[in-house]
Amino acid sequence: MTFSTSSRGVYAIATTPFLQDGSLDTASIDRLTDFYQDSGCSGITILGIMGEAPKLEPAESRAIIKQVVSRARIPVIVGVSAPGFAAMRSLARDAMDLGAAGVMIAPTPSLRTDDQIVTYFGQAIEAVGDDVPWVLQDYPLTLNVVMSVGVVAKIISNHPSCLMLKHEDWPGLEKISKLRAMQKAGDLRPFSILCGNGGMFLDFEPERGADGAMTGYGFPDMLTELIDLSAAGKRDAAHDLFDAHLPLIRYEQQLGIGLAVRKYVLKRRGVITSDAQRKPGLALSETARAEVDYLIARLAQRDKRAAF
Amino acid sequence: MTFSTSSRGVYAIATTPFLQDGSLDTASIDRLTDFYQDSGCSGITILGIMGEAPKLEPAESRAIIKQVVSRARIPVIVGVSAPGFAAMRSLARDAMDLGAAGVMIAPTPSLRTDDQIVTYFGQAIEAVGDDVPWVLQDYPLTLNVVMSVGVVAKIISNHPSCLMLKHEDWPGLEKISKLRAMQKAGDLRPFSILCGNGGMFLDFEPERGADGAMTGYGFPDMLTELIDLSAAGKRDAAHDLFDAHLPLIRYEQQLGIGLAVRKYVLKRRGVITSDAQRKPGLALSETARAEVDYLIARLAQRDKRAAF
Amino acid sequence: MTFSTSSRGVYAIATTPFLQDGSLDTASIDRLTDFYQDSGCSGITILGIMGEAPKLEPAESRAIIKQVVSRARIPVIVGVSAPGFAAMRSLARDAMDLGAAGVMIAPTPSLRTDDQIVTYFGQAIEAVGDDVPWVLQDYPLTLNVVMSVGVVAKIISNHPSCLMLKHEDWPGLEKISKLRAMQKAGDLRPFSILCGNGGMFLDFEPERGADGAMTGYGFPDMLTELIDLSAAGKRDAAHDLFDAHLPLIRYEQQLGIGLAVRKYVLKRRGVITSDAQRKPGLALSETARAEVDYLIARLAQRDKRAAF
Amino acid sequence: MTFSTSSRGVYAIATTPFLQDGSLDTASIDRLTDFYQDSGCSGITILGIMGEAPKLEPAESRAIIKQVVSRARIPVIVGVSAPGFAAMRSLARDAMDLGAAGVMIAPTPSLRTDDQIVTYFGQAIEAVGDDVPWVLQDYPLTLNVVMSVGVVAKIISNHPSCLMLKHEDWPGLEKISKLRAMQKAGDLRPFSILCGNGGMFLDFEPERGADGAMTGYGFPDMLTELIDLSAAGKRDAAHDLFDAHLPLIRYEQQLGIGLAVRKYVLKRRGVITSDAQRKPGLALSETARAEVDYLIARLAQRDKRAAF
Repeated sequence: MTFSTSSRGVYAIATTPFLQDGSLDTASIDRLTDFYQDSGCSGITILGIMGEAPKLEPAESRAIIKQVVSRARIPVIVGVSAPGFAAMRSLARDAMDLGAAGVMIAPTPSLRTDDQIVTYFGQAIEAVGDDVPWVLQDYPLTLNVVMSVGVVAKIISNHPSCLMLKHEDWPGLEKISKLRAMQKAGDLRPFSILCGNGGMFLDFEPERGADGAMTGYGFPDMLTELIDLSAAGKRDAAHDLFDAHLPLIRYEQQLGIGLAVRKYVLKRRGVITSDAQRKPGLALSETARAEVDYLIARLAQRDKRAAF
Repeated sequence: MTFSTSSRGVYAIATTPFLQDGSLDTASIDRLTDFYQDSGCSGITILGIMGEAPKLEPAESRAIIKQVVSRARIPVIVGVSAPGFAAMRSLARDAMDLGAAGVMIAPTPSLRTDDQIVTYFGQAIEAVGDDVPWVLQDYPLTLNVVMSVGVVAKIISNHPSCLMLKHEDWPGLEKISKLRAMQKAGDLRPFSILCGNGGMFLDFEPERGADGAMTGYGFPDMLTELIDLSAAGKRDAAHDLFDAHLPLIRYEQQLGIGLAVRKYVLKRRGVITSDAQRKPGLALSETARAEVDYLIARLAQRDKRAAF
Repeated sequence: MTFSTSSRGVYAIATTPFLQDGSLDTASIDRLTDFYQDSGCSGITILGIMGEAPKLEPAESRAIIKQVVSRARIPVIVGVSAPGFAAMRSLARDAMDLGAAGVMIAPTPSLRTDDQIVTYFGQAIEAVGDDVPWVLQDYPLTLNVVMSVGVVAKIISNHPSCLMLKHEDWPGLEKISKLRAMQKAGDLRPFSILCGNGGMFLDFEPERGADGAMTGYGFPDMLTELIDLSAAGKRDAAHDLFDAHLPLIRYEQQLGIGLAVRKYVLKRRGVITSDAQRKPGLALSETARAEVDYLIARLAQRDKRAAF
Repeated sequence: MTFSTSSRGVYAIATTPFLQDGSLDTASIDRLTDFYQDSGCSGITILGIMGEAPKLEPAESRAIIKQVVSRARIPVIVGVSAPGFAAMRSLARDAMDLGAAGVMIAPTPSLRTDDQIVTYFGQAIEAVGDDVPWVLQDYPLTLNVVMSVGVVAKIISNHPSCLMLKHEDWPGLEKISKLRAMQKAGDLRPFSILCGNGGMFLDFEPERGADGAMTGYGFPDMLTELIDLSAAGKRDAAHDLFDAHLPLIRYEQQLGIGLAVRKYVLKRRGVITSDAQRKPGLALSETARAEVDYLIARLAQRDKRAAF
């Protein structure tokens, strides 16, 4: 498996495991890396928004990259979004030196006009170097930057080193269709589309032309099966599988506490030792944990992966 | 059924039906009113955000109030949120004169601090009159005003005429629990909580203390059954019903095109003649319509209400 | 004087005078209309953001238009920005029927991408009618919509009925230069540029190519002299006059309380009876009023218009 | 001079000088440090928003702290605002170890409710350590977090290590008056208030109770004289001095290009070698530079400090 414009399947958005005292949990990092791999993922994305990247010190970021890259046999993408290009360049060059397959870059939240967005990525790639393969992250709900289809197309056309779109516009199904239509018409070169947004529309996204998912839902093994079913044209089976998981997917996708749910599920599955987050971060109440338990118990009736 | 602090069940957020040419579709307004009533709703809320209120001329708003109030045998709430208090007062007084049971008021989007929000509602109620029963709408995702539990409690304590909270904070389950806990502790007087957000968390919200739903999902008949099941303590049955509908609920809850989905479902159910919206408004693509059809067909296998 | 693509000078942004009890002060409306005219203004803009338009009932808006248009011998522009196109159309058509010279339209705050903005004005003009002359308002600080030079150019090219840009981007001097350069290069048709932002950059804006000001500063008689001095090439004299007023201009331009300052100055000049605003609105503290008095007293030493 | 709750005068917001190629200009850092000191400043604040802090790599930040602290004989405050508490703590502890007098902390832009803001500073101080003296930065225009008077008072009451408020709310004169009134009434302990916002209201802020300025205007020598005049009760003289500088202060306070103006002025004064900024950053056009030159030439007629 390589990171390229034809990448498909599931790239796991990795959480960063901490112990209760807030220190990095390196044993869990290894287990998590193995877990993603054994779940059939085609890649792993680390140090993204859900990886609590801004809460890490620079040396910790490098240590995590080194550990995951050494252990993984699948491509590792490193989130390098930063308020300034000096830090972005530094992290990107270090990541590549440490063996990462590429980096992921999101627009900085202050950008507004089409020109500002296109210019920003021009400057970012000038800083990072056009030899570094990268993923364009399109996530308006959190980043507050809205990229039209035309802007995405322009960025991709301007930068051959952009191999993939992490698509998490919302609503976003039409955007996938329009980008794929532009390619069909010969107006846009090939690139991979993996979808985020917690997987909330992963029943329809592959049908629209997405190549898979890049998200951190606690059941990556289900996500890989879902993408395969969809690719095999087994529409009803794909939707059946998706629908069984949707109540939990929906619960996990709540802004702010979503990461707490995700870590709790991974802990219950035995992958990470603790569901602790570094501050600032929201914890689950007793009631919320019981609700997640109930959802998992209900899911277990339809998917044995949840029977733990 | 009355509009009071102990209101429960489902208040339908009514869409405003237009003909293809953009004119008001009065025949559909009657059918829609009957449909909500026959679905077991305890009330109807008109002229809300999803009722395209800002796209109506003042005379049209009055005509709609008159028509719905005359036909309905359940309480009618009228959305009166407006940029200025003169228009808010005028619409609220007219609504009450026309027989409405109460009004619904959302905070104006520029409010930021706790004080600003509390003061705003003080001024709003001074304008509208403290004899007008009202619903407090808490909808940060769209209105961009975040009300803490303390602020909601203060507004409710300040204004005895506030009978109900339309709860659509997201994530919002903890907020319900905390408000109900304040009441249990004797720190807050009684008020009804009905939940919005398209019903996305209506499996857990009643368990947390909500009295029901105030939303416009195309299957209000399912919503009323769901609330009844939950009230009867039939937890698994309630979740089974909810889960069957969640794929469609989720599809309908997309910001921007959600209203198009909702109107399309109501049209397919034969309730309204056209799914036209006034501009600005997003239409469904052919593919999106086919996706909704597919979701309805799948739903029909589990709920005969969808077999039309 | 006519409203056209070659309009120049000062269009006064009219405040709406209220009596202490919040009712419309029609006597002051007449005095204010005369005052703007006698100050040498080329036009008057009513029902803008600083005219407390959203706090008026529809019938009041019409009454104000009627009164000002009947009395003024200079063009009257009417602000018609509204959340929906039905209300916008209705007010615009009524305004033209009542004798207004044109209307002013600002983008709705939710717009983000270039396409969304261009489309919005397309729909607005379709609603209002392409026979209605209009002013494009570009005011990102308050409206939160950022229009690039390219977007402004596209809107102007798409709509021959757009005769003027109300420029109040901030910072915005380069935008004027770039738009004028596009015209020089033959890429953009003629249109008038009048500047807002309280006049904070009116020393340089005409030098960059602006045709004048559209703002409501309490000394419109100074603004007209300033534009004339600048047009006559008397650079130092223009800056001397501007600099004398800048401390007060700056004080008046404070978001939120700027209107209170403006009304207070107009009241002290004897133009309006009361500086009351309708709610919501911020009042000046005793200290703030004393500060304005001090600024006026200092100004009177350099400009006799302030010696009242 | 010490950093304490009774600090007064001017704390210069230091720019970070770069050479044309973007590398740190250490010679200019020394000259700039001397310049601020020789201008009568009581302190220097480094690595703030206008110090391009997010564009620096961690090692560079430390190098700058070391250099400025070693050279300065006045207190040095270090901006440590960061998206996560790990980086904030790390920079704060390093800064104190290197000899800084304290740190400055701004709220993270996502905060909305009063509780969220108060909690954030609680967590920040827990991370940084309550032995580190700090400045609370209140800058809603850029940070988009609005702190009411009550919230500021609560943070100051909660944290004895908070010695100073950097006040740059806008409009903000009433906030100073209210905080000082709370102290007079015995409801709030002493703390210093220095004002930012580019100095736009520094004629009135000391009269309201501010102890001075914390801003980076290119004439810190004027700022110190202004604060002294005001403290000596020479009101007219203070306003005369302020008014002479206001046209340039106003020009420099433009969001986005303000830093370019500031660096250009410091370069013209011979303090820094280049006005280069790291990307992203806006450069001055030829016309803009000529406008600044013109403003300086006009200023030189009234203040000989500008005659260079």
